[in-house]
Parts: sequence; structure tokens; C-alpha cells
Amino acid sequence: MPGIAYLGPEGTFTEAALRALQAHGLIPSTAPDAAGADEVTPIAADSTSAALAAVRSGDADFACVPIENSIDGSVIPTLDSLADGAALQIYAELTLDVSFTIAVRPGTAAADVRTVAAYPVAAAQVRRWLAAHLPEAEVVPANSNAAAAQDVAAGRADAGVSTALATQRYGLEALAADVVDEPNARTRFVLVGRPGPPPKCTGADRTSVVLQLDNVPGALVSAMTELAVRDIDLTRIESRPTRTGLGTYKFFLDFVGHIEDPPVAEALRALHRRCADVRYLGSWPTGDVVGAAPPPMDESASWLEGLREGRP
Amino acid sequence: MPGIAYLGPEGTFTEAALRALQAHGLIPSTAPDAAGADEVTPIAADSTSAALAAVRSGDADFACVPIENSIDGSVIPTLDSLADGAALQIYAELTLDVSFTIAVRPGTAAADVRTVAAYPVAAAQVRRWLAAHLPEAEVVPANSNAAAAQDVAAGRADAGVSTALATQRYGLEALAADVVDEPNARTRFVLVGRPGPPPKCTGADRTSVVLQLDNVPGALVSAMTELAVRDIDLTRIESRPTRTGLGTYKFFLDFVGHIEDPPVAEALRALHRRCADVRYLGSWPTGDVVGAAPPPMDESASWLEGLREGRP
Amino acid sequence: MPGIAYLGPEGTFTEAALRALQAHGLIPSTAPDAAGADEVTPIAADSTSAALAAVRSGDADFACVPIENSIDGSVIPTLDSLADGAALQIYAELTLDVSFTIAVRPGTAAADVRTVAAYPVAAAQVRRWLAAHLPEAEVVPANSNAAAAQDVAAGRADAGVSTALATQRYGLEALAADVVDEPNARTRFVLVGRPGPPPKCTGADRTSVVLQLDNVPGALVSAMTELAVRDIDLTRIESRPTRTGLGTYKFFLDFVGHIEDPPVAEALRALHRRCADVRYLGSWPTGDVVGAAPPPMDESASWLEGLREGRP
Amino acid sequence: MPGIAYLGPEGTFTEAALRALQAHGLIPSTAPDAAGADEVTPIAADSTSAALAAVRSGDADFACVPIENSIDGSVIPTLDSLADGAALQIYAELTLDVSFTIAVRPGTAAADVRTVAAYPVAAAQVRRWLAAHLPEAEVVPANSNAAAAQDVAAGRADAGVSTALATQRYGLEALAADVVDEPNARTRFVLVGRPGPPPKCTGADRTSVVLQLDNVPGALVSAMTELAVRDIDLTRIESRPTRTGLGTYKFFLDFVGHIEDPPVAEALRALHRRCADVRYLGSWPTGDVVGAAPPPMDESASWLEGLREGRP
Repeated sequence: MPGIAYLGPEGTFTEAALRALQAHGLIPSTAPDAAGADEVTPIAADSTSAALAAVRSGDADFACVPIENSIDGSVIPTLDSLADGAALQIYAELTLDVSFTIAVRPGTAAADVRTVAAYPVAAAQVRRWLAAHLPEAEVVPANSNAAAAQDVAAGRADAGVSTALATQRYGLEALAADVVDEPNARTRFVLVGRPGPPPKCTGADRTSVVLQLDNVPGALVSAMTELAVRDIDLTRIESRPTRTGLGTYKFFLDFVGHIEDPPVAEALRALHRRCADVRYLGSWPTGDVVGAAPPPMDESASWLEGLREGRP
Repeated sequence: MPGIAYLGPEGTFTEAALRALQAHGLIPSTAPDAAGADEVTPIAADSTSAALAAVRSGDADFACVPIENSIDGSVIPTLDSLADGAALQIYAELTLDVSFTIAVRPGTAAADVRTVAAYPVAAAQVRRWLAAHLPEAEVVPANSNAAAAQDVAAGRADAGVSTALATQRYGLEALAADVVDEPNARTRFVLVGRPGPPPKCTGADRTSVVLQLDNVPGALVSAMTELAVRDIDLTRIESRPTRTGLGTYKFFLDFVGHIEDPPVAEALRALHRRCADVRYLGSWPTGDVVGAAPPPMDESASWLEGLREGRP
Repeated sequence: MPGIAYLGPEGTFTEAALRALQAHGLIPSTAPDAAGADEVTPIAADSTSAALAAVRSGDADFACVPIENSIDGSVIPTLDSLADGAALQIYAELTLDVSFTIAVRPGTAAADVRTVAAYPVAAAQVRRWLAAHLPEAEVVPANSNAAAAQDVAAGRADAGVSTALATQRYGLEALAADVVDEPNARTRFVLVGRPGPPPKCTGADRTSVVLQLDNVPGALVSAMTELAVRDIDLTRIESRPTRTGLGTYKFFLDFVGHIEDPPVAEALRALHRRCADVRYLGSWPTGDVVGAAPPPMDESASWLEGLREGRP
Repeated sequence: MPGIAYLGPEGTFTEAALRALQAHGLIPSTAPDAAGADEVTPIAADSTSAALAAVRSGDADFACVPIENSIDGSVIPTLDSLADGAALQIYAELTLDVSFTIAVRPGTAAADVRTVAAYPVAAAQVRRWLAAHLPEAEVVPANSNAAAAQDVAAGRADAGVSTALATQRYGLEALAADVVDEPNARTRFVLVGRPGPPPKCTGADRTSVVLQLDNVPGALVSAMTELAVRDIDLTRIESRPTRTGLGTYKFFLDFVGHIEDPPVAEALRALHRRCADVRYLGSWPTGDVVGAAPPPMDESASWLEGLREGRP
């Protein structure tokens, strides 16, 4: 029964993602010979970094953390925590549509709302809605989407930009549901554990690495060429500072395919040879295809085998 | 006398950067035939985005905004605001060491501090210092580094993680100065205006573009190859979501050189031809060399000219 | 009235090519202000190398020489002579179908033929025809296709593998015409002069260079990438030994486009910068399109000009 | 006791190369369990093509043929015969210095020489020597270097440009030895058989392929990039017409390394996948290193294995 850390408190989108991962059978069992974990123990953490630290320390088996949002981009604390410290590995992913619930204490009407608690990231995503529907209300900062609901329950704010799950947990009502300025707002969450054999190759997989490059012109394009020449579809590149000075970066690369796909295996070896450091973040199923699958190599492998045996 | 918007209120790092840009003569004059502006009118804005909006609307001539921090990476609102809306252009840059002043009302001792106001970005950069020196204090969010000082002046917090400039402006004292967890913390600021002829080529320049690519495998590496093949040193790449769905990005590329450097001019034309869209963010002096300068082409240009005239 | 050296004696395919170049108006005038030469003075040379030497020495204004055959490939003496010695330049090209005339003295029947004079290259191209039609005849070597006819006229052989032109010149008859084993046999001839301004860009042009590369792995692919990245269609690459030792080569590259096409001009400059030596062999019209034309750059040039002037 | 076809008649350079291959133990045994062939049966052939045809038909086990000369470049009939028809494979190579013996009947002095028989390739390589030492003599064509000696022995010429071996075989004397215009003249010979398992990887090996490419711009540079990206040293590229029309080619590529070297195996698979056709001409020892060896992959392979097993 694996313990899974998540960005708490109860009611966050991250908890919802964790519940969905479980419902889809995507959480590996920690017991031998079990196909998937049917029971999990959620462990609320104060931050994404704390959730990953709990995995590193052994206090949790896995952590469920957001990694990317279609509006805000990468979740920086997740990336930085994956890149530094003891190695971690991604085992699953899940994408949720993001929309907010405007939580109020039962009986509160829109006209009664003077203050709205909101996590700044959330505030940015409902700004236009608030301007249209609660133009007089002042936005006050909250520590998370779930904390916005806690602030309302405790009387520190009249309304909160929160989640459906938190609205229910803290005994509140929805003044409005499915609130979001931008359509297409989605967040991708990943399930992170300590290193181990990757999940089986499914044909719709993603592989992720963090590269450190020698500081020479062309180093990044050389590394990316190792993917391109093998027709591996790079789906994402993100740079993050190395913190050793302005202008030095590490690079997060996501691409389509699994370490068991021969082109991906070739490319990983080549990156390892060419880069100052390659941190492998895992290969895991995406469910849906997220780009062009790496080319099959069976035919060329058997051709090569024939040459080696003198049968051209 | 140009009006320059900046992230206010008075006393932010951004205002300090603006003062330094002025001191270095890096602010273009808005009057014809003037080499540089010796007087400027600072205009405090609520946010980086608002500062850039003031330039677009004509309420300001320029905006001074942070673009990159050596610890936190890119300043996302700046990038997003540069990439969307009417075209803007960068004319100058300046890098400041980042360290904080812990501001208190006169006479306050460390033992008196129960609450510390901090802009979340700043809180993250002094976490270890606070844990060591003010372990009992609760951190409360502020809207900017200068607002943290205002919160202290108004009695809403006992101490604030702020700047030297704001501490002085708001009549506070420094409980501690030069506070920062990470050494090497530096922020790069840029001066942004409406499009115009770029500053003269100095030999130590930076050019920046935003690329939108067709969604085909290898499109990014093809674009980067246009730089690499011309020995242009790509110093930074940052991806940002296009907001049309997870997995589609625009790319910010910085490279060494000026639009008047022939290899850079060639590369810009090639990117324009190859990419779905190229937004030019400017060419401007960096003062110091920040990478390998583009190769000189004078000799090869005169060779080519000779061929055209029949003199090989 | 330009003097034009060619591989003689009278009656060779090369003379036929020279006549065709003249008929098509492809021979530049040596007089100022004249569009093309309407009169030429053919000068028979002993060899392709001798014809080119006559241009270098000033004894001829141009030389007409074969450069490539669809069956045999490159005409090596032409390539080697273009690559070494004083610079020469190509001004025009013309392609002829290759087929032979079996020349005999008037009245000679097939049954009378005991010996067949043939230039070895020609002998190789009619081997199957000879085996089928003159199976008893012995092939004896001749010094050129025209010399084969001379040998017949002088009684040194009973038949000759020659040209229609030579058969007529030397008073012989055709035992058979249009003889060739391989269909599609074609030879491309070029008109070579001393360096001068290239003919005007026509939109269907070819440019040719000889590269000497530093002896480092990847040097050739780097040079070729300068063409590929600019979408310049490389139509031919030929390697020739440098004669300084086994395993060192110079490379002849032909590509579509003219030195006045901006991508070609860019690529030539880049090659000049990157290679140990670039010898420009000219840009000249091909009449027909021989590959993908270089991309037009007008739109991107005006875009760049707009950026420089502050009009994005 | 393998039968080995060679370009005869007795006394050619090719026979000398065959003798040297045998002396170096480079001829594979045709008997099971034998390390090398200690006895061979030379079989003189009329031409290089005929020698290779004898291997294809089973009349010979191997053929020894010249493939490249440092002055003249590729031996075209060898390349064309390797590229067309049933598959053949190269098992060994050997390089000989090229110099000629001027063969005369015993007692002949230089002043007596009116005619010199010479294979045209040889005539080209001693032209300056003949001009200096036998300026009055007429050169008459011979069918091979050995045939030049036969012509002298039969009285059809006064002297012959031939080999030391042929001079001795045909009872002639050397008027001059070690005659050659160009220093560094060397010829590389290869031993060709029917397809079979390649010789063992020695660390100093060469691999050769013939590529047919789709007729799209950039196809060749894409194929070469498959080698370059893997740091495989391309030592030679030669184009030959496909004979289907002017302007279509097949490409012979030689590179350093053995099919058992992982980068070479990867590259061969990639070429097979990317090209219209890849004909493998073998991997064989060169004795000396002829370029940069492919990078070792052991370390990256064990790193990859660790990742697959969850041990980063």
C-alpha cells in the first residue's frame, strides 16, 4: 500500500490528479507480483519540493506533482527538484483540465463578497472572470488553491478561488463552477518515485532527460541532432539556470518513445557520450500518442544480422 | 525627457536597474540628434505586464523590466508580454547582483519580529537566512519587494524582505543587509520600447527572437541549425506554451551578435523563411562579451565580389 | 571572332558540341558590346588537357571539352585540368546524345571487315553491337573517335567506330548509324574560358566549385551542410585524388543556382570561410532546369530591411 | 586451395598485389577450420570486370582487383562491377607503390627505341620521363602493362612501359626501373569474394557501402550525417552514374570501422532505413589505421543497461 506525497492540503488539484492516477491503475504496486496498487495512502506535503523530498527520504513511495500547465508553462519547483539531489524517476503521467470553483460559505451571495482569497497562479487564470463577476472584490493572496477554501471557511475571506474537491471538503458552497479565463487550460501531473526499471513499453510512451552541456557553441544543437537524425520527436525543451551564474543552463528534453525503442536507446547512449551529464528521468506510458513514434528498426536489424552472417 | 515605466512601487530592484541604466547612458533619447537621455521620468507600474502595456499605449516611452534571474530563470510575465500583442523591441540591458535588505521600523530588534512580509520570489531566495536568523517569524505574502517595505511602514508586518532603496524610501532601518541564500544571484533587466532602428553594432551585442514553428518533428533543430551552421553562439533558449493546448510552444532565442553582423542578418532571413513566425525582439549592446562573437565575413565578401567581377 | 580549342581532330563529338553551342548562341563574344559570337575559329587540340592549356596560354579564347557522360561518368582529364593550374571558368554547357557511326571506305561490306579501329571509351560503348554484327572483327585501338575514321581512310583498319561528322569529313560511308549499346547515353560538354564576370542569371543555372578540405572527420559533410541548410540542390559530387597520397581528395560540387542568387552567394561565402580552398568554376545557364532552384529571398530581405529601419 | 582471378596476363601489378596478399596471409581459406590459405591458384583474366565475373560464376573463389590509385583516382570498372550484378564482398586490401620498368629485348639501347608500347593509364604516368629520356619514340597503345612487355617480346614495339614482374616473365631486360613521373603513386588493391561473414574486427578496419538515394535535395547530406553524427570517419566518397540518365548517381562510401563496431552497426541500420538501397561491400582489416576509429561505446552501453534495470 504505497504512500504517495502530494501538494496539499486536502482538496488541491494535485490530490485530484492522484485520485485519477489511482482510478486509472497507473500507480505501480510496491508489493512484488502485484500488477498495480489498488490502495494508496495520500500524504499531504507543503510544497512540490517537499513532496519530492519525502520520496528521496523514503517517507513516501511516490509523489504526485504538477509538471506543466498549458497557460503558465513548466512548474519550475518540480523541474528544479527533479534535476538536483538524488536521482528520481517518473513512472506515470495524467493530464487534467483546469477550472476553478468559487467557494463561499453557505448562504453567501455575490453581492456579499468583499474579499477573494486566491493562490496567485489561480488569480492570474480567473482575472477576467473576477473583473466581470466580482468587480468590487479585493483579491488577497492564499498559499494554495485548497488554502483559499480554508481561508473562506475560517472567515479570513468572503470567497476563494479553489477546487471542487476543496469546496466540498471544507463545507463550502460553489458560487460558480468551471471558472477559467482561458479555454484549453490543462495541467499535466507526473508520478515520481525512486529509480527502478521503467514501466513496460506500450507504443505510446514518453522519455525525459536533463542535459548538462559543455559550454561550447553548438553543444545544444549537437545534442538535439542526436534525436532528430533518428527521427525521434522532441516534444518539449525547457531550460533552467544551473545557478552557477547568469547564462548557464541545464536542459529538460521530453521526447516520444521508450528506452526499449531502439532509436531511443541509441539516442540515449549518444547523449551520454556527448554531454557533460545526462540525468534520465524515466520512460512511461502517455496513454494517448503525443507525437510521432520513433521509427521501427526491426527490418533494418534483421538486415544487419544478415550481413554479419554473410547473407546480404 | 523620456517616460520610463517600471515595476513599482518606488524602491524595487527594477527602479534600481532603471537608475543604473540611466547612469550608464544606456537610455536612448526621445529627442532627435541627442546621444542619450540625461533626464528620465520614472513611472511606477503595478506589474511587469502593466509596464510593457504602458509602452504599447504610448503612456511611456520605455519600460525597464526584469527578464532573467540566475536562480529562478526567466521572468515569465516579461517573456509572455514581449511575445504577445503589439511588437516591442529591446534597446539595452543591465545586470544587477541581487541581495535583500531586511527592513524594520526604527528601533525594532530581531527578537521583536513576529511576521515577515515577503514577495514570494524573494521569500524563496532568503529561506535559509530566515530559518537561521528569524526562526520564529511567520512569512506573510507581499505584492513586491517594495510593497514588503510598505507593509512594514504601515504596521502590517514587523519586518520585510526588501531592497536598500525601499528601506530608505519608506523611512525604515536595515535589520540586515546583503541577505541572500545563494551566492551568484543576479538579475538581468532590459529596456523595452516601441520598434525602431536598433542601437549601433558595438561588437559585443545580443540579438533576441521569438519563434513559432510548424508542428513537425525536427522543426526546432532545423531552426537552431541555421544559427549553428553560421557559428552564431546561441546563449539562451526558453520555451513558453502557446496557450492553444498542452505541448505547443513558442521559443525565445538569444544569441551573440547584431542584426548588422552579416552572419546574424543571414540567419534572421533564414529563420524568417523557415519558421511560421519570427518576432524580432532587437539587437542591443551587452557591454561585456557574453559568448563567441559571430565570425567576420569581410574577407569572404570581398572574395565573392571578386568572383562576380571575374577576379578570382 | 573567338578562337575555340576542342578535342580534335576534325569530326569528334566535341567538335559537334562546339557547333551546337555556336548554333544556340551560347558562345560569349570576345568583342565588347556584342551579345554573342556569330563567328568562331575552331582550333583542334590533341587532348582535352591541351585544349584547356591553349586557353590558359591565350592561344585560344575558349575550349569546348566533355565533362561528364551518363555511362562512364566524369571525364577525368577535364576535371583534373580545371582543378590545377591557372584559374579557368565555365561559361556554357550543352548535352548531346551519344551514338556512333560505323565508318567504312565506300563499298566495304560487313563481311569485308577484319579490323575495327576504336577509341577505347567508344569500344566499351558498342561492345555488344560489335559482338552481334561484326563478331569476327578484331578491335584495334585508335586515339579518338575521329582518329578511328582517319585510320580507316588511311587503310590502317577496315572499319572505325566514329562519328557522323568524321565519317563525312574523311570521305567514308556509314556501315551503320546510331550505334550504341546503352540507351540514354549522353555527354555533357562545357565551354571554358579565362575568369570573367559570369553570364547573367537566368533562373535555370548551374554553379560549380572545387573544394579542398582540412583533413578532419566531418569536414565534407559540414561543407555540404552549407548547401543543404540553404535548400541549394547539390546535383553532383565527384572526388578526385589530390595526388599527395592515397586517401586525400578534392571535391567537385555542382549545384543549382547562380552566384547572383542570394542563397548561392551566402553558401559560396560560407564555403570560402570553412574550406582550405574553394576554386570557383563558374555559374552559367543550363537552359533546362536541372534540379530544385534555390529559394527566393526577396521577401525575407525586405523583412530584414524593415527590421533594420524599425518597421517590423 | 582457392582459385583467385586477377587482371592478367602474367606480370601485371595486380598479380604482384595478389602475391603480396598471399605473403601477408590475407587470403581467407576456402577450407573449414583453416586460418588462412597458404596455397592459391592464380587465374589470369582479361579485365577487372572479367575477374569479378569469375567470382560471381564460381569459376574463381576470389578476385584481386585494383580499386584506387593515388594519381588517377578510382578504378572505374572495379567500382561499376562491384555495384551491379550479384552481391560481392571485399575481404582484404593491400596497397602497392607504383613504378614502372621500361622493358626492352636484351641488348637494346635507348638510342634504338623507335616505339614504346604502353597501357594508356601507364603512358600518362610516365609521360615526362619519356619526354626526357626517349623524346623521339612514338607511344603505341597496349592492352595492359603486361601486354606491353608481350608486345616487346613479340617485336611489335621496341620498348614497353611494364612491370618488373612482366619484364622477367617475358625474358626482357630493364632499360630503366622505378620509372614514374609523380612521387607518391600508389595503388590500392582489394580481394573480392562472394558474400560471407566479414573478417574479424581488428580495430583498424574499413567498411564500404554503395548507396542509392531518392532523388530529393539533401538526400546525400542526410545519409552522410548518419556517419558524422556518430563520429564515423568517412574516408572516401565516389559518385558513379546510375546509367539511367545524366545527373543520377550512386555513391560509394568508405569509412573507418567494422560492422561489429557499435557506431558502424547503428549507422548501417540507419542508412538501410533512409536510403533507397544500400549495398554492403564488406568490412575488412586495413593493417594500418586509415583515419579516426569509431568511438568506443562500452561505457555508454553499460550506462544504458543500468537505466533499464533501475540503476542510474
